[in-house]
Amino acid sequence: MQAKSVGIIGVGMIGGSIALSALRAGYAVFLYDSLGSGSLAGARFRGATVVPALADLVAQSRLIIIAVPVGALSEVGGALAELVQPGQVISDVASVKQPAVLALADVLGDRSDYVPSHPMAGSEKSGAEAARGDLFNGAVTLVCRELARNPMSVELVTDFWTALGTRVEFVSVGEHDEIVALMSHLPHLLAALLVRHVWAAHSAALDLCGPGFRDTTRIASGSPQLWTEILLSNADAVGKQLQHFRRALEEAQGLLAKKDAKNLQALLDDAKQSRDRISP
Amino acid sequence: MQAKSVGIIGVGMIGGSIALSALRAGYAVFLYDSLGSGSLAGARFRGATVVPALADLVAQSRLIIIAVPVGALSEVGGALAELVQPGQVISDVASVKQPAVLALADVLGDRSDYVPSHPMAGSEKSGAEAARGDLFNGAVTLVCRELARNPMSVELVTDFWTALGTRVEFVSVGEHDEIVALMSHLPHLLAALLVRHVWAAHSAALDLCGPGFRDTTRIASGSPQLWTEILLSNADAVGKQLQHFRRALEEAQGLLAKKDAKNLQALLDDAKQSRDRISP
Repeated sequence: MQAKSVGIIGVGMIGGSIALSALRAGYAVFLYDSLGSGSLAGARFRGATVVPALADLVAQSRLIIIAVPVGALSEVGGALAELVQPGQVISDVASVKQPAVLALADVLGDRSDYVPSHPMAGSEKSGAEAARGDLFNGAVTLVCRELARNPMSVELVTDFWTALGTRVEFVSVGEHDEIVALMSHLPHLLAALLVRHVWAAHSAALDLCGPGFRDTTRIASGSPQLWTEILLSNADAVGKQLQHFRRALEEAQGLLAKKDAKNLQALLDDAKQSRDRISP
Repeated sequence: MQAKSVGIIGVGMIGGSIALSALRAGYAVFLYDSLGSGSLAGARFRGATVVPALADLVAQSRLIIIAVPVGALSEVGGALAELVQPGQVISDVASVKQPAVLALADVLGDRSDYVPSHPMAGSEKSGAEAARGDLFNGAVTLVCRELARNPMSVELVTDFWTALGTRVEFVSVGEHDEIVALMSHLPHLLAALLVRHVWAAHSAALDLCGPGFRDTTRIASGSPQLWTEILLSNADAVGKQLQHFRRALEEAQGLLAKKDAKNLQALLDDAKQSRDRISP
């Protein structure tokens, strides 16, 4: 087993992008997808080893990254638990960490070290064909280190994501799920509700849209099945954010009704200042 | 006065972009900005004639486009009314048409033909420095022809926007303001409220954001002053959309609370289908 080796379980858009970035960063890459290796053939993943069975991947990978949908984590965790060796480090890239930890920590914890991670980059596209070697350039990876028993495991995971061009930030499992409710799940719902609302209110208007509307709603093209799973697995935190956001809408509606230019501009000033803090 | 001549009053990001596109399309371009011509000097607008007084612009332009903020339309309209000649065609690019028509139709209507237009493209940046020659490529321009007495005036305006690379769609003044409330003003408020909400809830989270959040909130960097004016000048229509949208949020919140996977996925399916209709 090489020190710089990584096995990726589940080669969709995210798993495939990890594979492409890891190859470029000089890792020995092993790929396993329970749906079969059809989409992994050809030139796309040249340099990686596509293995026919999970056991082959485990045998050769120092670091194992589970990149399957949240709903499939338990099954993968159960299968992995039979195979992992002491000293192996497992990570996952699930969008919500409480259910990932529930599915994986117990079954994996005794035999290996589990360090959840989440690279904050994505695309509205899905499948191995949509994988991109530059997807993670400049992104932030959230890493939860509270479950790891060995600091070396955290270091291995941190080095991996750093080698892939991301900046690692440590957060707790609970904090992770609050952050993604705010930064990813609420925005996804808003984009989806907005484009659906426009379609219902004035379907022809969609043909007239400019770049602002296009950008604002891009993520609404994401996989409905995947996103239903994500949103429901973080339902409490997302519901709380929706509740807060409804109040913000109510406040804005009140300012418009009163034609309150001063406070409306103060609101837009706050928003601009917040948005301008985000690096381009 | 050349047949293919255009005078642009107000050379900010939009006026400047119109100038750059019109130069490329072979128009003789005259520029006037009441704030002075300082920012128009230099290589940027080479080929255009920067005139010192409104009268000079009117004397040389077959088509005159007013590209000042909504709040300045009345003053420009009053000044123009003294100068325009029969046969001249006036357009504006205000984001909201009811107030534009109130400010301009009466003062201009007797002496010239007024054909409101609105190219559906923009940027979160402002000022002549932010002007781009490709801003309008592939955009839609909404044109209101109901006020024009001479069909030739509508044709002149249509030919102009077509020459600039946009596709012209005719809408009534009322329909225009409903469409922009839906496609531009509601999305702007949502983006502003979202980024402000995230900042208030977890300010450090803004440093962690991925490309989805970045795109979804880009327009929140737009000028607060300009947007206050726009939103207030279309307050009734925007307020109505906010009210509808709050109900959509409430519906989504209910689905999350009930963990209703079937209807949540149906909602996301509808959204994806709507979004996928927008050409890339």
